[in-house]
Amino acid sequence: MNIDHNFETLDPQDWEQSKALMHKMVDDAFDYTQHIRDRKIWQEIPDNVLNTFKTNLPKDPSNAEEVYKELQDNVLPYPMGNVHPRFWAWYMGGGTISGVMGDFWASILNPNLGGGNHAAHKVEEQVINWIKEIVEFPKSASGLLVSGGSMANYSGLAVARNVKAGYDIRSEGLKENNLVFYASTEVHSCNTKAVELLGLGTKGLKKIKVNENYSINIDALKQQIKEDKANGLQPICIIGTSGTVNTGAIDDLQSIANICKQENLWFHVDGAIGAIAMLSDKIKPQLKGIQQADSVALDLHKWLHMPFEAGCVLIKDDVAHKDTFSLIPEYLAKNTRGLASGENWFSEFGLQLSRRFRALKVWMSLKEHGSERFGRMISRNVEQAYYLGELVNNNKDLELIAPIGMDIVCFRYNPGGKTLDELNAINKEIKLQIEERAIALPGYTTLNGMYCIRCAISSHRVTNEDFDALIKSVLSIGEEIIVS
Amino acid sequence: MNIDHNFETLDPQDWEQSKALMHKMVDDAFDYTQHIRDRKIWQEIPDNVLNTFKTNLPKDPSNAEEVYKELQDNVLPYPMGNVHPRFWAWYMGGGTISGVMGDFWASILNPNLGGGNHAAHKVEEQVINWIKEIVEFPKSASGLLVSGGSMANYSGLAVARNVKAGYDIRSEGLKENNLVFYASTEVHSCNTKAVELLGLGTKGLKKIKVNENYSINIDALKQQIKEDKANGLQPICIIGTSGTVNTGAIDDLQSIANICKQENLWFHVDGAIGAIAMLSDKIKPQLKGIQQADSVALDLHKWLHMPFEAGCVLIKDDVAHKDTFSLIPEYLAKNTRGLASGENWFSEFGLQLSRRFRALKVWMSLKEHGSERFGRMISRNVEQAYYLGELVNNNKDLELIAPIGMDIVCFRYNPGGKTLDELNAINKEIKLQIEERAIALPGYTTLNGMYCIRCAISSHRVTNEDFDALIKSVLSIGEEIIVS
Repeated sequence: MNIDHNFETLDPQDWEQSKALMHKMVDDAFDYTQHIRDRKIWQEIPDNVLNTFKTNLPKDPSNAEEVYKELQDNVLPYPMGNVHPRFWAWYMGGGTISGVMGDFWASILNPNLGGGNHAAHKVEEQVINWIKEIVEFPKSASGLLVSGGSMANYSGLAVARNVKAGYDIRSEGLKENNLVFYASTEVHSCNTKAVELLGLGTKGLKKIKVNENYSINIDALKQQIKEDKANGLQPICIIGTSGTVNTGAIDDLQSIANICKQENLWFHVDGAIGAIAMLSDKIKPQLKGIQQADSVALDLHKWLHMPFEAGCVLIKDDVAHKDTFSLIPEYLAKNTRGLASGENWFSEFGLQLSRRFRALKVWMSLKEHGSERFGRMISRNVEQAYYLGELVNNNKDLELIAPIGMDIVCFRYNPGGKTLDELNAINKEIKLQIEERAIALPGYTTLNGMYCIRCAISSHRVTNEDFDALIKSVLSIGEEIIVS
Repeated sequence: MNIDHNFETLDPQDWEQSKALMHKMVDDAFDYTQHIRDRKIWQEIPDNVLNTFKTNLPKDPSNAEEVYKELQDNVLPYPMGNVHPRFWAWYMGGGTISGVMGDFWASILNPNLGGGNHAAHKVEEQVINWIKEIVEFPKSASGLLVSGGSMANYSGLAVARNVKAGYDIRSEGLKENNLVFYASTEVHSCNTKAVELLGLGTKGLKKIKVNENYSINIDALKQQIKEDKANGLQPICIIGTSGTVNTGAIDDLQSIANICKQENLWFHVDGAIGAIAMLSDKIKPQLKGIQQADSVALDLHKWLHMPFEAGCVLIKDDVAHKDTFSLIPEYLAKNTRGLASGENWFSEFGLQLSRRFRALKVWMSLKEHGSERFGRMISRNVEQAYYLGELVNNNKDLELIAPIGMDIVCFRYNPGGKTLDELNAINKEIKLQIEERAIALPGYTTLNGMYCIRCAISSHRVTNEDFDALIKSVLSIGEEIIVS
């Protein structure tokens, strides 16, 4: 077929020129990643750059090369910082080149993982099977790759609501306003958001006090369920966390499993941070009981270092899963042959219809690195957390504020003789100056009123020397602040 | 700092070797896209390939080059087909190289768009402002890039529920089971799913009959609202569709806006397919009234051809939007300086906390191509739909089954003398054979009991000659089937 080369499309007008630009991008991107340590982990965006983000919708074309120059000048120098080894804020993965390669091909091939009979669908099925293996779920369980932990938890809780309400809540809607989920006070906020959106209201998630190690207090949980039942409420689900975002605490999943069995409740595990640590000998024993969950939420863009986004939900009862989300109108009716065939389409197991081929980066990465290497990376982070903990414990001006959970260390500078308010102000300033001087990007949180520097050590690039540098900076900046 | 080169990470062990592989991928990917016409649009996956997707979790590493070979051998030959110009099934974009470049850098930089003070956040703000310009929404409106139309609609309907319930539904949960959304019988199924998940049940979305052109019947809508109010139900929102997935019909948005004003209802537009067509002179007049919506859902991976995923929701009342989704626990508390500063974080406007930098591909593409080129691409698809419609009308053995809406053509082969069941079987077989012979990938739907071949013409690569070829195949395969 003859194609008119003046026929306007969104394809490159000059393929060779466009390809040359992409090759240049590859060189630059590899240089960027390989030498990430030499780049500033974070810096303030100056006003003249900020102003470039305020221009109106571009109506006319520009050269792709010029657009790329804008990216280099105005975006690249002002990163979030999480690719850098010294990023310990919030909880994120660092990305990988193999993940980038997978994402690149996902964008080129650009299939829609809503469903259908094509290879990408099989790749996602395989990836989900692998994740079941990791979490020791049966092959009969169902699963879905989702945007991240928030959506994974949302999906698990939605199925829990529909299964345990005791009536056809999907078609009839919430009849009584008395369904209750349970979790510890340390549960991630996305679970609260999920329960609110599911129509139960904030009050539909009861938060149970924690033990000194920040794991859920099992006795208080039992007591609350008993009281609620006596008061006419209907407990439907317990959310166990592994581990918590503040301190990396892991709930006693085995005890929660037992309660759920006894009380006929759905057992959901928010394992956004820690479920993938089933790959690590160091953490796996602490996750005992996860195998008995009805649903597990995982994040693969955290401790598996996939480029955003990659979350996963697994549901043991595949029928309940499908019954919550499947909806097939005439324009999605399936065929027995061809592209539109196949029994289980991913769109029948979640909120999304169109879905990116996010499985490909996971598939390529797990094949290239092998699961055991990921396990070793996780174990090393745990060791590094204890290394940092020792540095803190060995210095009289520093103190741990919580037990080290998994890879999370919460500590503060405390040279003595300061009030709580003063200590909070000093530590807040230390954290900000470490960031503004581009030394590192520690996180922070507040535990029992104490502001602390919180390091979530999830980088696969970080070394012990980075923590030496952190401690040195905390102490010197702390002293500067006190003197000034 | 000295890095031990034996230090195990997930980075390439040999950067030059890895970079060489990525360069090869670029050459192959450009070749793939440039010569997409020469590749089979779809083909069945043979059993020996299917079996490769059944192997267990890989524990040990493999060479990246070998993994890539598996991708080439087992994934690339069995695509969904939507990059190909002759893909007219469901409703998808075809992807673009500029979108791929944006996605590539999103994976390399790998920021988390949950929030924070970094350049990526500013890029997404700018992209959302551009989309507001396109839909003629005020600058004060809020918006969020989401996974796609399903999540965009879900988000709009969640805000509608919370604003119009008349009590603090977010904290208290659904008190009465009487809230009602309205849409036409042609509304996309994701809206039903959203209303079910929001706790209202399937019955919470009332479907109103359509006119002959498949747009919502305004009189029936008014009548239903009146009846429902008389029966103690509480109407809260009307969903207008632009356009419908079956036939591309556009509801009378101006009349819906008027009803919503009069009845104090939320006005949501499901514009997943057509809202972006505000860029096209040919469609824009038909969308009159969209400017008055309280919320609009768009898909940028449909008629803007972004690689998956890219949807967008715009909400006129930014406070209501934030009040529905914002939740800031201590570990997400903001700072006044540094990375964790900034007033509005994207995670406060949606279900996701961690979010991919999906704005970058939109930003780079709109800069490179300019909005007017996208408008021309949309207009050309509309012209092509009418071209195909003419081919159908000019042939005595073919008939249109619905009026052409936007870029969607529904027709069937009907040589005369056949029953409805026979015609349905023949047309189904024609569609499947066109697919299995890798001639094209038309879609299909059923309208008033009639199975029809449905072409959603959204490719930026398709030419009129492709439709000549389609018609030729429909007729010849149709004759073959009848003779056999």
